[in-house]
Amino acid sequence: MKNKNTRPARTGKAVLLYEGKTKNVYILENGNYLLKFKDDVTGQNGVFDPGANVVGLSIEGIGNLNLRMSIFFFEKLRVAGIQTHFVSANLENSTMEVLPAKVFGKGIEVICRRRAVGSFLRRYGDFIEEGAPLPSYVEMTLKDDDRSDPLVTRDGLIDLGIMSGKQYDDIKKKTQEIAKIVADCLLEKGMELYDIKLEFGCNGDEIILIDEISSGNMRVYRDGKYIEPISLSELFLK
Amino acid sequence: MKNKNTRPARTGKAVLLYEGKTKNVYILENGNYLLKFKDDVTGQNGVFDPGANVVGLSIEGIGNLNLRMSIFFFEKLRVAGIQTHFVSANLENSTMEVLPAKVFGKGIEVICRRRAVGSFLRRYGDFIEEGAPLPSYVEMTLKDDDRSDPLVTRDGLIDLGIMSGKQYDDIKKKTQEIAKIVADCLLEKGMELYDIKLEFGCNGDEIILIDEISSGNMRVYRDGKYIEPISLSELFLK
Repeated sequence: MKNKNTRPARTGKAVLLYEGKTKNVYILENGNYLLKFKDDVTGQNGVFDPGANVVGLSIEGIGNLNLRMSIFFFEKLRVAGIQTHFVSANLENSTMEVLPAKVFGKGIEVICRRRAVGSFLRRYGDFIEEGAPLPSYVEMTLKDDDRSDPLVTRDGLIDLGIMSGKQYDDIKKKTQEIAKIVADCLLEKGMELYDIKLEFGCNGDEIILIDEISSGNMRVYRDGKYIEPISLSELFLK
Repeated sequence: MKNKNTRPARTGKAVLLYEGKTKNVYILENGNYLLKFKDDVTGQNGVFDPGANVVGLSIEGIGNLNLRMSIFFFEKLRVAGIQTHFVSANLENSTMEVLPAKVFGKGIEVICRRRAVGSFLRRYGDFIEEGAPLPSYVEMTLKDDDRSDPLVTRDGLIDLGIMSGKQYDDIKKKTQEIAKIVADCLLEKGMELYDIKLEFGCNGDEIILIDEISSGNMRVYRDGKYIEPISLSELFLK
């Protein structure tokens, strides 16, 4: 396969493993993976919605912005001693080399909510006002498009054989730490993190953060007003 | 109010507090409540569905059957040292006198699942076969018809201010114990409990089982075949 857009200079041959909604995944000769950030974003009816399960539109340059934002946060986490799958990046090609990692089940989304918006508010709106603070509440959903990514409890994950209680507690703690770091970085720029969606995997015995940390994975507000992901990337990286 | 059907002989005046889907609730002069079991059952399109949120049909005598089954189990739980709201019953009037209890939030449904069927299977069918055994898995949902009784995690209940972690753990333990007792009683009659839905409330500092334990709150199978609630009541009480 000869494709200058997907072949990183130093890792030799890259073989396409699968095409994702917003990223393509290649396997490299050294056993690592290469993520190619695409300009496709999830949404419906032409409106960007990071929680949507379908690709709604294409925005030129968004893949590169997402990669740059991810690198920024992965570097911050490295300094804080939190393990991620990040190895290196090629900004010109919008690619990131990452460690291999085995996901839990068919993939779990881990959400940290610092304020009540989105599906949390839709579910529990009888008990909480929109935008009310939450003490870094963490919840997990199964990645299952056909079943609209169902919420799953700690006991559910254990009884379904997806993860152990110890792994759940470890991921919950890591998620709260990561959300705090992201929130602090945003606060420095006058913005507030309301919620963030993360993914984890196992690299050997270690649980590491995988996927990306970009504007498409979080809800951020400024002066109580929601910032669209594309504006967020631009505001954050400028 | 003079209504011979709802006024128990020994407690004097009973004042209607509210009309429920399957039971009316009266307050008694002694501070306790009187539950009048109705012949209305939940369901849709004329089909009995204990999980439904609307009254679908009326079945003569079902209220009395539900009361008799509840009394049976409440007596069993009393012997086992598990506190319930049950005080006494009047079979002729299909009424049960119960202790006052404050529900959690606007009411929580606590489900114990011993085999994967129903909404659990709909949510997690990608990871478990229909009817596969579960180790007395417990989950809680908010009673909120408008939001289709959403699932809520232990952390969610704590952060929404609905119950403490200690209360959650206590209710979970009690639910597993009660489900075991109900399952054992059914097993003696050649039937198997797949899941059961319970409700709890606080009587002072104590968490007690409230509502009822009847065929409408559980899924029971015999030789791998589901038993309709009305048949279940009849089979169980004969």
